[in-house]
Amino acid sequence: MIAEHGDQRPRRGRPADPYVDEALRTAALDVISRSGWRGATVERIAERAGVARTTIYRRHGSVHGVMLLVLDHVYSRAPVPDTGLLRDDLIELVRRTAAFWRNPQFKDFVCAMGAAQREDPSCTTAYLAQMAARRTNTMTIVERAVERGELPSDVDGRLLLDLLFGLFSQRFILSCDGVDDDDVPAIVDTVVAGFTAVGAR
Amino acid sequence: MIAEHGDQRPRRGRPADPYVDEALRTAALDVISRSGWRGATVERIAERAGVARTTIYRRHGSVHGVMLLVLDHVYSRAPVPDTGLLRDDLIELVRRTAAFWRNPQFKDFVCAMGAAQREDPSCTTAYLAQMAARRTNTMTIVERAVERGELPSDVDGRLLLDLLFGLFSQRFILSCDGVDDDDVPAIVDTVVAGFTAVGAR
Repeated sequence: MIAEHGDQRPRRGRPADPYVDEALRTAALDVISRSGWRGATVERIAERAGVARTTIYRRHGSVHGVMLLVLDHVYSRAPVPDTGLLRDDLIELVRRTAAFWRNPQFKDFVCAMGAAQREDPSCTTAYLAQMAARRTNTMTIVERAVERGELPSDVDGRLLLDLLFGLFSQRFILSCDGVDDDDVPAIVDTVVAGFTAVGAR
Repeated sequence: MIAEHGDQRPRRGRPADPYVDEALRTAALDVISRSGWRGATVERIAERAGVARTTIYRRHGSVHGVMLLVLDHVYSRAPVPDTGLLRDDLIELVRRTAAFWRNPQFKDFVCAMGAAQREDPSCTTAYLAQMAARRTNTMTIVERAVERGELPSDVDGRLLLDLLFGLFSQRFILSCDGVDDDDVPAIVDTVVAGFTAVGAR
């Protein structure tokens, strides 16, 4: 969900070449954003990255493989805040997510990812595995809050996170108007209050 | 957001031909779902609908125009529940929305719509106008709840609706696992509790 960049990430298939992969990630985002999903061909991405088309075919198989490279980088590099308070963890997580969504290239990427999944079931499988790994990471915020007594032990933490992140899907993808950083604390407080209100669960 | 079918809807451009438009809507959903957004051409949609390609060009200009025809139908035909209770209105609205999202053709359509907007700015403009009109309609649920004293008068009704609907974007588009009808009342209660909890706002 969150775009941060660095050097460590889980790898599969061919040994990583960080320079080639970085060039391909940047090129894929750029080509998708300029040419739309229909215009995102191996040829254009290779040209933009300054590599041979065969490099893409050999290392990643197809445009779908390059999409997964971008996604893997975005998810696996996203740190999980650990401030010692649920409210602050969520505010930080949500603000980072908002920063990710504000980059129009990533919105284009997410829409393309939806279309790509329809075309290639193996793309869906890999995508869902990355989503699940990311969710396991962010759930530690909820688990720590339960340990500290900030949330009830039977809280539906998945629902809490999906409501918060769903707001971004809704506002950035569907209604195209985003979320102000200044509004984030009140949004977090409202959502958390629903999970701590007496009689609400 | 919600798929329901009927005969009245706002029209623009050429006079409506309900039979042709119905055939084009069905064909567009079918072709997008079978061939993906990249394969959704005027030629394929025309063939599937049993009309000439020129019929699409004349009436709707392009594949994007046919997308807007589908969207217009989905949004403008979605009734707004009025049960007399906020909780029941929201449960009904959310269940109808879930039914819409469970149709895999509509998920494919929404992903294609995201990709289409990137390619055609006029598509984005028309899409946002339809979203805004739909939001005005659903906000009447919140307004009636405020009048009945079920929600505080300064409630952020937009946030309430975006949290609920965002959950669907998150679960159906991004994590592909949906929402059970049986879980809907507890979800509605949790979200509403966040907006009525003392000190939460």
